[in-house]
Order: sequence, then C-alpha cells, then structure tokens
Amino acid sequence: MTRQIQAEPLKRIVSAIFTAADTPPETAEYMAESLVHNNLMGHDSHGVIRVPFYCSQIRSGALKPQAAPRVLKETPTTALVGGSWNFGQVAARYAAEVAIAKAKEANVAAVGLVEMNHVGRLGEFAGMMAQAGMFGMMIVGGWRTPIAGVAPFGGQGRALGTNPYAMAVPTSRHDIVLLDFATTVLAEGKLQVARAKKAPVPLGVVLDMNGQPSTNAEDFYAGGVMLPFGAHKGYGLSLMADLVGGLLAGADSFKDFDNETGAMLFCIKIEAFRPLMEYQQKVDDRIDVIKAVKPAPGVKEVLIPGEPERNNEKVRAMEGIALPDATWEGLKQTASELGLDLKFE
Amino acid sequence: MTRQIQAEPLKRIVSAIFTAADTPPETAEYMAESLVHNNLMGHDSHGVIRVPFYCSQIRSGALKPQAAPRVLKETPTTALVGGSWNFGQVAARYAAEVAIAKAKEANVAAVGLVEMNHVGRLGEFAGMMAQAGMFGMMIVGGWRTPIAGVAPFGGQGRALGTNPYAMAVPTSRHDIVLLDFATTVLAEGKLQVARAKKAPVPLGVVLDMNGQPSTNAEDFYAGGVMLPFGAHKGYGLSLMADLVGGLLAGADSFKDFDNETGAMLFCIKIEAFRPLMEYQQKVDDRIDVIKAVKPAPGVKEVLIPGEPERNNEKVRAMEGIALPDATWEGLKQTASELGLDLKFE
Repeated sequence: MTRQIQAEPLKRIVSAIFTAADTPPETAEYMAESLVHNNLMGHDSHGVIRVPFYCSQIRSGALKPQAAPRVLKETPTTALVGGSWNFGQVAARYAAEVAIAKAKEANVAAVGLVEMNHVGRLGEFAGMMAQAGMFGMMIVGGWRTPIAGVAPFGGQGRALGTNPYAMAVPTSRHDIVLLDFATTVLAEGKLQVARAKKAPVPLGVVLDMNGQPSTNAEDFYAGGVMLPFGAHKGYGLSLMADLVGGLLAGADSFKDFDNETGAMLFCIKIEAFRPLMEYQQKVDDRIDVIKAVKPAPGVKEVLIPGEPERNNEKVRAMEGIALPDATWEGLKQTASELGLDLKFE
Repeated sequence: MTRQIQAEPLKRIVSAIFTAADTPPETAEYMAESLVHNNLMGHDSHGVIRVPFYCSQIRSGALKPQAAPRVLKETPTTALVGGSWNFGQVAARYAAEVAIAKAKEANVAAVGLVEMNHVGRLGEFAGMMAQAGMFGMMIVGGWRTPIAGVAPFGGQGRALGTNPYAMAVPTSRHDIVLLDFATTVLAEGKLQVARAKKAPVPLGVVLDMNGQPSTNAEDFYAGGVMLPFGAHKGYGLSLMADLVGGLLAGADSFKDFDNETGAMLFCIKIEAFRPLMEYQQKVDDRIDVIKAVKPAPGVKEVLIPGEPERNNEKVRAMEGIALPDATWEGLKQTASELGLDLKFE
C-alpha cells in the first residue's frame, strides 16, 4: 500500500528529521531538497527511503553531518576532495563545485572524492557541471560492505559495487541531456524498493546464494549477487568505475566503517572547443533528430536521457509522491527515535 | 571457407598494398601492424577486412595517406587535432600522443579529433595512454553516411553511429586493463564479418527495414537498423558519444565526403592522485580479487577486460590467422587493381 504526499510537506518532514539528528539546518534543507527531488523524478530508490539508513549512520558515527568537506591536495587541474564523512551528497556537491571552478580556469579538471558516504543520484552533480557550461562526468566506484554485491560477468561471487556513471551536456531550447545509470541491471536502491513492495524483479537481475537465477530481491540480501547490465560491456564499465572512481581517487586509503567507495569527476569546458551557444544549439538540433525517429511497434515516443525523469516530475509535482507504507513507517520510526512525533500532513 | 596465414606475411601483404596506394612506407607499415594486430586479437572486424575500403577511399580522395595530422588549436590542457583525412588510426595515434604530452605537463588533458577517417580499434589509443601512466579514455561519435545506422532505444530509424568507448588503466604484474566496446550490441564490423561468412546474428542485434527483428546481417545493409546494447543505458552512452565525440570536438564543422565523425580523448595522469607504482599494484590486487571469483555454472573462468584479446593473440601468433576467402579475395582484387600480383604465402 502507498499513501500520496506532496513534495513540500515531505521536504519539511525530512528536514525536521535530519535537523533532529544533529544536522545543521542548511544541510538538512539541502538533503531534504535532494532526496525529495529524486522521488519527484521517479527515483524512489534514491529518495526519502534512504533517511532511516542515513540517520542510523549518524548514530553510529559513520556519517558526520557537521563536518565540512575540504580539498586535501590540488593542482590547477586536479583536486582530491575529502568528504569528511558528511552526507555523500554534500561531499559530491562540493566536489562538483571544485571541478567547475577549476575547469573554468584551466578548461579541464579531474576531481577525486574520498571519505564519501552514499552519494545519492549522480545525475545531480553531472547536471551541475552541464548547467555551468561543461561536459560533466562522474564515476563512483569502490567497495562498501555489505551493500556492494555485484558479480563480474561470468562469475557468481560478490566482487564489485553497483558502480554508477553519470554524464551531462548543456542545451538551450531543450533540458540538459543527463545520462545516469548503475552498471548493474537494476540499481541496488531499486532492489530495496522491490523488497519494500514485495514485488518480483526480472530474471537476469540477481543470482541467489547458489548462483541460480532468481526473481526474489530478498535472495540478493540473503547472500546472492547482482548482475552487471549489458553482459561483458556493463561488467567492463563496472570494473573501470572501481579502478577509477575507487582506486584512482584513492578511496581505499581513506577507508572507514567498511566504506572505501570514492568518485572521480571530470569536467571539460565547452568553450575550450567551440562557442557554448553554438554547441547548445547543435545539441538541441540533435535532440530534435532523435525525437523525430519513428518509434518501434508498441513504443509511444523516443526519449532523451533525462526526459523520463522530467516527465515523472511534472506528474508528481501535481499529484504528489506515492510513498509505500514501509517507507512511511521507516520515516515515522526514525522520527520517533529522535523524539519527533511525525504526522501525515 | 577460410585459409590460415601467419601475421608477418599478412603484414607484408597489407603494407605492400598500402604502399602501392600512395601511402608513405612508414604509414603503410604502421597500418599493416595495427590492422594485423587486430586480427591477432580476434577482432577480425577491425583487421585486414578493412583494406579494400580504405584503398577505395584513397582512390576517391576521402582518405589522404600523405597528409599529416596537426594541431588546429590548443591550450595547455586541450587541443583540437585535425586528422587531415589521413587514416583514422594515424590521426588517433597522433591525438593520443598530444593528449599524453599535455597530461604529462598539466595532469589532465582533453583532445578533440576531427577530419577523422575510420579509426579502427579504439583500445589501441586508450592503451597508449595507459602505457604512459595515465587513465585513458576515448569516445568516438558523429555521423558517417551510409555506415551509421543505429536506432535510439525505442525507435526504428537510423539516428546514431556505433559510437564506441575505450578506457584503460596501467598495471604492473598484469597486462593493462583495457575496455573497448561499441555501444551497439555488435560492432558494425562484426556485421561485416557475419555477412562475409553468411552467418546469422542473434536476435536483438538488428531490425529490418520494417522495424522487425531479424537474424540476417544483410537486413541491416538493406535499410534496417542496429540496436544499442543494454537497452536505454547503451543508448544513452551512444547519444552521449555523439554529443561529445562528435559535437564537442566539432566534427560537424569539418564534414567531408559525408563523414562528420570525431573523437574526444581524455587523459588523467595517475601521479596527480597517487604514486603510479602504488596505483599499479592496487589495480593488480583488484584483478586478483576479480579473477578469484567463482565462475558461474558453465563458465570456465572470469576474465578481465582486454584478456580475451590477449588470449586470442597467444593462439593466433602460433596458429596463424584464419582469413575468410571473401577477405582474401578482397585483398587480392585490391592488390590487382593497384598492379600488384598477390600470392598466398
């Protein structure tokens, strides 16, 4: 069962919970905005469903909501950002700002991010770079026990994280093109959603603990594995995310609370190659070409990466967000533990 | 039917053909080395099967084997390389050298490549960057009539190229990790091979001219489309390759002979983030972890990206390369048109 809730009251609830959990008001508001925006865009897996886990991490000390991210070392084109184990989103937003500032000066930048908690929806940060007139790319890799649990192509044991990628470019008439995907068939958060809804997942998403195909999301949490998308190609992207987002950033050297995930952000200033407005118009024109392609039988229209999310947002901004009861109960219990009495508005 | 030929005599044949086709000896030798190496690694689609097409392009003037690639504009971190319509491989090798030189100085580099003919196996150039102690990445995008013929996810019309990616990182004990893939289910070259062998392709690779699934590679050449791998994710990667490898480099402004493909190469110097030897060892250790994963039922061993190619190379260096008769006849006829009398050695 679900209940319908509008974005604004949901943000107030989330902000109140984080504030009660020792989070500075500005950070609590940003986190509420970021998570509820993910719900609005249809990515419930990266929305308020995460609040109880984040609060449990604040309790355990794994998440330090008052610690400021900072630059650990830098050159004119590179930086290593320590997220100080604040919310991963707070760390990634800071890293994206550093990347943008450097690329504005130097045309290109690469920023590694370590001491990074769960980072949320990568598209938010690649999108910041695109909005600043850049090609933005972000790769997350490395290992976080016990969540990481992806088998390499051809294997049946856990060896990789869900290792997502995001890329974005600026546009003019159209919304930015924003690609954001986990290198698993499904994001781990989507398994959490399936588990909360007790809904089956398609074959090919997980193997059970004996290496057998399964449609039950629980089988993953009982010691199974997730599978990479696109066979050897998705597996290759996943491994490369591990070697770049994790090891090149150096997240293994900053391991804490069994978390050695990290990220690498790249930024190229469009103006280094051609005038920004000219580029934006060229991208707009290509979007028009793609959108004009005849849909395959049974398909309504061809979509641009980022478009399904914006379509969801339009609907959910009107109709509200359908929160599964389990998600609501999770918020309510977390609030109660923090001495808040949560009411459904 | 196929005939077996060793790499060295095949290189001599290819080099002789290119030399007869107005190609300077050094370039002819490099091209023979590059193409035959692709055959050795099992990528027959990117091997000597391409020789007749390249020679036809030299005849038409689309490929200028004597024109030197050069830097059209640059900053300390970026360059735009014009390939001068030489072989795409010659242009890409030059662009990779520029990227490496810039990243050595500035830690990070982005190099766009335009005036680019068919570029061959991207892994060669990403691999150069890794061998130089860099994370190397190369994206090819843009449009080349009439070869490009990929439908966006959900569509049935041609709108994208096969838009490949390659990424590589350095190692120490192990061979470099080298990921190299087309964003189609199969590379277009693999369709050429299937066509030459009259072999069926799996369902999901192409649609025929009416948007219907087909297992006949000919249906693609008769007006059908190729499909992206990994559904919306592979499609998103394909579109992003178009917008970055094609439009950001600005290949559309250098269009000639209906070719407006381009490339973007990124390079990050490992030493900007951690000592190279330390990184190489960490990557080696991760490779060991991945290789130790229990194979799924029916799988012999888990492989690292780049490993299948090296396994092929070991076998083919001994046993020779199995050239389909159609490929051999193509070489023979091309040689004959150039006044060479080709003999099977």
